[in-house]
Amino acid sequence: MVDFPKFVSIHEEGPREGFQIEKNLIPTARKIELIEALSLSGLKSIKIASFVHPKIVPGMADSEEVVAGIMLQPGVAYHGMWFNERGLERAISTGRLDLKAGITLCASEVFLRRNKNRTQDEDIATHHKLLEMYQRHGIEVGGIAVSSAFGCNFQGDVELSYVLDLLQRALDIAAEHDVTIKNMALYDTMAWATPYQIKRAVGAVQEKYPEFELSLHLHDTRGMGIANAYAALEMGVSKFDACIGGLGGCPFAGHTGASGNVCTEDLAFLCDEIGIETGIDLEAILACARLAEDIVGHPLPGSVMKGGSLRGLRDRIKSAA
Amino acid sequence: MVDFPKFVSIHEEGPREGFQIEKNLIPTARKIELIEALSLSGLKSIKIASFVHPKIVPGMADSEEVVAGIMLQPGVAYHGMWFNERGLERAISTGRLDLKAGITLCASEVFLRRNKNRTQDEDIATHHKLLEMYQRHGIEVGGIAVSSAFGCNFQGDVELSYVLDLLQRALDIAAEHDVTIKNMALYDTMAWATPYQIKRAVGAVQEKYPEFELSLHLHDTRGMGIANAYAALEMGVSKFDACIGGLGGCPFAGHTGASGNVCTEDLAFLCDEIGIETGIDLEAILACARLAEDIVGHPLPGSVMKGGSLRGLRDRIKSAA
Repeated sequence: MVDFPKFVSIHEEGPREGFQIEKNLIPTARKIELIEALSLSGLKSIKIASFVHPKIVPGMADSEEVVAGIMLQPGVAYHGMWFNERGLERAISTGRLDLKAGITLCASEVFLRRNKNRTQDEDIATHHKLLEMYQRHGIEVGGIAVSSAFGCNFQGDVELSYVLDLLQRALDIAAEHDVTIKNMALYDTMAWATPYQIKRAVGAVQEKYPEFELSLHLHDTRGMGIANAYAALEMGVSKFDACIGGLGGCPFAGHTGASGNVCTEDLAFLCDEIGIETGIDLEAILACARLAEDIVGHPLPGSVMKGGSLRGLRDRIKSAA
Repeated sequence: MVDFPKFVSIHEEGPREGFQIEKNLIPTARKIELIEALSLSGLKSIKIASFVHPKIVPGMADSEEVVAGIMLQPGVAYHGMWFNERGLERAISTGRLDLKAGITLCASEVFLRRNKNRTQDEDIATHHKLLEMYQRHGIEVGGIAVSSAFGCNFQGDVELSYVLDLLQRALDIAAEHDVTIKNMALYDTMAWATPYQIKRAVGAVQEKYPEFELSLHLHDTRGMGIANAYAALEMGVSKFDACIGGLGGCPFAGHTGASGNVCTEDLAFLCDEIGIETGIDLEAILACARLAEDIVGHPLPGSVMKGGSLRGLRDRIKSAA
């Protein structure tokens, strides 16, 4: 009935998706400070930079400096992101990043039309071009994903059958370029998922594609992040994106206190209490969350950094006895 | 596998457990304003006052005025709490409250010793005296509960077998006084529960006592509140305590931003999205949460009031189309 994974991998998105949304520019040195602390917490995969145009995302203009400035830890993969060839070339030229590409299709045609002025077919055509670009640069393409997979603030609910269809279309794109896909991901981009829906979607993907590893990218904008992660854990999902402190507050909510991505340390705490290994040192990751809060200069939504870990409490109770 | 209840009853604790912890005194008129708004949201059970000594809890000194001041709604039960005969007499003399008593045993003997300077046996003896008092005053005793049922900040983990044992001891107390018990409750007083533990505990209680209705009192101090509620919903639990806006911030955390009780409107949202009836008007309860935030004058942890309900979004998308 309950099929918990033995080990859960958390991919940290805080220094990229988290910091990107902050109103105040974060000094390069403080970004480096957080990334280095995260690198020593047991996390094995961290997205640390975004090579987008500095006019569009001024907060990411120092991406090269950030990447150059960190002390790399062995066994930790540092990732970056980009949207075009110029960005990819910038990421490559750092010489320090683990560059893996993916094919992400969007389950909301309304959002595609509004934000990219593209139909689904037009968007798919651009993915063929991106794959040619990756192959030109020798970049590995390992995963496919569907974004807005649970619903969209502009379109509304998304049919699960359409999500499955898009996963197949992404696999077809990969196949046309002789690319082998190992990982599938569902992104709850706009926080529409609830745990029951997670179970339905994960179950359907696992049934149709049992040979692929499935990962989830969850948001906590409506307070369902940890409940959704728990539902996925019960289904055996073992890979999650997360943001330290719950960074990444929702831009739609217009409220800095609104929760963003599912919170790294709260997810690590949940796994720890269930007995699922994450490789993460809980007290170290809680210290990272408090550091992130100090860096952004406002409260972050993470709970365990305020409530305290039970592991820590148990130790204190034991030593006081 | 999943055994969702058709209907979930939420008992609102915000005006009592929530307001009690606030540092600033809340004007009586504003308490009444919130209680009246809650009464019109579809909630059918609200705890609105606490008849404790005003020197101990100054914020509850106006309990009589609050109870006298509200416009009662038909079909809504208004509750109060007390710790001794003087408090009970004050509650009775309002003439407007639904007075139901319960037998609550504490699963942490360390906490009992620290806070009440009693052993478990001594505490049980006081419950016999309380039952005599209830019978003297004609107060119905309908439920039994175990507090700190999932762990304690002073004792550590609590054995499930001990919780089951305490439920039996509470039933025995009731039986000695010819009292019929209908409801059992588990209180996660100090937010030690995680969803897997909830399932284990709920399953064990349901197996041993299938004839009783089970309710849960959950805290969100470590971010597990909604995940715990979801786990309980999957087990068929249909009664929950909750606080509007997530009021009731944890006193142990020493942080006003720390989450308190599980949040009424986020729980109502979760039920609504799964398709479980609560009788609550989602937009009305979200308005109550924003009102509660306005009254306490600082951000509350509730998420859906910031992120917005999906029901509301769907309606806006439909009317724009």
